[in-house]
Amino acid sequence: MKTVKVGICGFGTVGSGTFNVLTRNAAEIAARVGADIEIAQIGARRDNPNCSTGDIPVSRDVFAVAENPEIDIVVELMGGTTVARELVMKAIENGKHVVTANKALIAEYGNEIFAAAAERGVSVAFEAAVAGGIPIIKALREGLAGNKVQWLAGIINGTGNFILTEMKEKGRDFADVLAEAQALGYAEADPTFDVEGIDAAHKLVILASLAFGIPLQFDKVFTEGISKIAPEDVNYAEQLGYRIKHLGIARDTGKGIELRVHPTLIPEKRLIANVNGVMNAVLVQSDAVGPTLYYGAGAGSEPTASAVVADIVDVARTLSAEPEHRVPHLAFRLESLSNHPVLPIEEVETAYYLRMSAQDRPGVLSKIAQILSDEGISVEALIQKEPVEGQDHVPMIILTNRTIEGKLSAAVESIQQLDAINGKVTRIRVESLAG
Amino acid sequence: MKTVKVGICGFGTVGSGTFNVLTRNAAEIAARVGADIEIAQIGARRDNPNCSTGDIPVSRDVFAVAENPEIDIVVELMGGTTVARELVMKAIENGKHVVTANKALIAEYGNEIFAAAAERGVSVAFEAAVAGGIPIIKALREGLAGNKVQWLAGIINGTGNFILTEMKEKGRDFADVLAEAQALGYAEADPTFDVEGIDAAHKLVILASLAFGIPLQFDKVFTEGISKIAPEDVNYAEQLGYRIKHLGIARDTGKGIELRVHPTLIPEKRLIANVNGVMNAVLVQSDAVGPTLYYGAGAGSEPTASAVVADIVDVARTLSAEPEHRVPHLAFRLESLSNHPVLPIEEVETAYYLRMSAQDRPGVLSKIAQILSDEGISVEALIQKEPVEGQDHVPMIILTNRTIEGKLSAAVESIQQLDAINGKVTRIRVESLAG
Ligand SMILES: NC(=O)c1ccc[n+]([C@@H]2O[C@H](COP(=O)([O-])OP(=O)(O)OC[C@H]3O[C@@H](n4cnc5c(N)ncnc54)[C@H](OP(=O)(O)O)[C@@H]3O)[C@@H](O)[C@H]2O)c1
Ligand SMILES: NC(=O)c1ccc[n+]([C@@H]2O[C@H](COP(=O)([O-])OP(=O)(O)OC[C@H]3O[C@@H](n4cnc5c(N)ncnc54)[C@H](OP(=O)(O)O)[C@@H]3O)[C@@H](O)[C@H]2O)c1
Repeated sequence: MKTVKVGICGFGTVGSGTFNVLTRNAAEIAARVGADIEIAQIGARRDNPNCSTGDIPVSRDVFAVAENPEIDIVVELMGGTTVARELVMKAIENGKHVVTANKALIAEYGNEIFAAAAERGVSVAFEAAVAGGIPIIKALREGLAGNKVQWLAGIINGTGNFILTEMKEKGRDFADVLAEAQALGYAEADPTFDVEGIDAAHKLVILASLAFGIPLQFDKVFTEGISKIAPEDVNYAEQLGYRIKHLGIARDTGKGIELRVHPTLIPEKRLIANVNGVMNAVLVQSDAVGPTLYYGAGAGSEPTASAVVADIVDVARTLSAEPEHRVPHLAFRLESLSNHPVLPIEEVETAYYLRMSAQDRPGVLSKIAQILSDEGISVEALIQKEPVEGQDHVPMIILTNRTIEGKLSAAVESIQQLDAINGKVTRIRVESLAG
Repeated sequence: MKTVKVGICGFGTVGSGTFNVLTRNAAEIAARVGADIEIAQIGARRDNPNCSTGDIPVSRDVFAVAENPEIDIVVELMGGTTVARELVMKAIENGKHVVTANKALIAEYGNEIFAAAAERGVSVAFEAAVAGGIPIIKALREGLAGNKVQWLAGIINGTGNFILTEMKEKGRDFADVLAEAQALGYAEADPTFDVEGIDAAHKLVILASLAFGIPLQFDKVFTEGISKIAPEDVNYAEQLGYRIKHLGIARDTGKGIELRVHPTLIPEKRLIANVNGVMNAVLVQSDAVGPTLYYGAGAGSEPTASAVVADIVDVARTLSAEPEHRVPHLAFRLESLSNHPVLPIEEVETAYYLRMSAQDRPGVLSKIAQILSDEGISVEALIQKEPVEGQDHVPMIILTNRTIEGKLSAAVESIQQLDAINGKVTRIRVESLAG
């Protein structure tokens, strides 16, 4: 049997998971590929105390792996966009195929990386970069290849989903759950990437490229985090029949592509509304098949390694194939990528949940309704609480119909100027996620 | 740009859907493949009144397509296992690649078809044969290639799921909903294939081969339909926190492979318990990634065509590639298929829901519990209804722990012999579907 030689660069959580999966399932993997996958070298600047590498050569310099003439596939599992980027470009330059789990790298530098790879006739595979072990890249690039994708919406950050799930199920508040997530190791010491939606934005940009055949445009994503979601919003959403999820949404509107990450109310009946804890899911709506959903672990050592190994298998199988026999990196051939514009958030159309503190007297609701109606926005549902003894303001919750973000912003501005309204209006987007 | 020539044989629901998708999305598909996909011939014994074929040559003899030297890919969408089998074998003999949606054909004759295809160096693709538009074949063969699959469970017959959903949501009975499903066109005039689980068994056999690397063994599947599910079972299940779904289950127990299709109580919290109506879903538990779930339309003209076209794209891309660069038909290379035995149903381990009509007097429960305990079975939950005025028998519902089917059968036999028990004991298997 042939042998395909793999070099793993970065030997932390995912690196050691990949090592473990390749080692444990070597026989099954060989029976699938028709070749032995050999870990021929590891690049790690220090040992991983949880994973013994036996007699596999370890180099303290990861670039030695990219220069090793024996290595067929360089597996980049270091993270970051500096050394990782140099390493990937060097590997490509040396005619090696690359497998990476690095969403930041692909989202921010994918265009240049794929151009270099195409030039050199090598593959850069990145299934693990989005939604961990869920084979969503493969589904979009190949499984749905006959479809025009209309939109997709994903729970693509496990930490964020864990926090929102705990808030809903236990009535806890954001800061409290975040602290626990950090203690459990789900969230980083600096949780910004997760809770402010940057990590989700990286992944969304990749999904949108595959779905719509557009270049990677990380700078164009609208990103809003979950740190401002209050326990009462989770409650009111529930009373209205909704769940709050942090979604990455990409939609082809005809006029342009929406690219946005934000907390979203979705009907509790939707399957994706019931994806809880650290689990991820991506819902894809496309013209021929309709809705399909892909669910699984979005992170973790072996779940992520599962995707890395699937990529290694794909690359190993087509190692000596002509590049035309391989699936294009961004689903569509480079020369066919479209320059469909990304829509600015002001032009995005969505429904809204509004929460405000309103004076409890006749006429206030009608004023608010008038302001909304002046912008062409109508009220779909309303919750107005009974006043608590001694308080003259009550929470008022409004669900609007679909409207242009710009119009809603104008209406909110006016509502906030009413004497009867205390403080700011809380606004959360609402999506029906219906076909 | 290159042109790949496709011949469609069978021009009914899926055939015309395939025609429509290939035609409507031709530009996007070409941009993915790097080749134009041309429908060069259609084999149809009569016109399809809902689909005009323009100036594409139509042959009344489908074998003309398999003989046409211009055709690269024969797409078999006739159904059945007689003419379809001959056609597929003829196409292979003539060196053509084949795409088919025919689960009966693959489940019953796949071993011989794949052997012939391997010999001739052509592909036979069958994504549409299981779960319609959900790319589950691709997920199992490629997306999870690094994993050992432990078990999988699927809602893989839309008609059956529609019936069970209606029974639960509207309290209707089986016969009533079946009649409606037939009127709506979901169920065939002869619904046996759907409601007795034969269609699901065809699909399960295919999934199990891909998951475990075993040959297709349709004759070994245990199959039980949903026609005996009563509305009260749906109700009691709900009271116990379960839903009843018609599942295809395959599990590698170490001692052998379980292959079974039957109604199953599953915890209502599981995502798959919330897959309703005609939708399908497959839950796969594997060693590295853990649980993943794939959801979407399992049938219908364009949803099924979506899978057919994805296969056409895959085959078109690797048309001139060496066979070793293609994914093996059954995920593992033919020479690596294992002879892992399929377990007889008596040796399957599962928990049970039992419903019986028991005399309402002291000591009955203890007798039943004793019989169960003698077989090593314990009671996990119990519902005993208050007697209705004038009736001395009450429904008694028992959930058992996991046990060997053979032991449960023996216990049920003894329970039915008790004087205090009226008639037969209803038994439905229970699965937690937890990792
Ligand atoms: N963890 C997940 O669940 C997950 C899921 C999906 C994708 N990913 C992606 O997978 C990649 C790896 O993540 P991870 O969780 O495995 O991170 P990690 O546990 O921190 O491991 C990264 C490893 O790379 C090493 N490294 C970093 N820079 C290096 C350099 N210049 N030279 C040599 N070694 C270097 C680190 O060494 P030191 O310890 O010495 O710094 C560490 O051992 C990232 O791109 C991440 O976004 C992770
Ligand atoms: N429908 C679905 O949602 C679905 C989903 C997944 C898989 N599938 C599979 O897809 C295949 C096609 O199903 P379908 O629903 O499209 O069936 P269909 O609507 O009955 O279409 C089958 C077509 O094949 C034609 N045909 C049958 N035998 C023929 C022969 N010997 N020569 C020429 N034409 C012949 C039939 O012609 P006549 O009308 O003259 O008989 C009919 O037009 C089946 O294997 C089915 O299991 C279907």
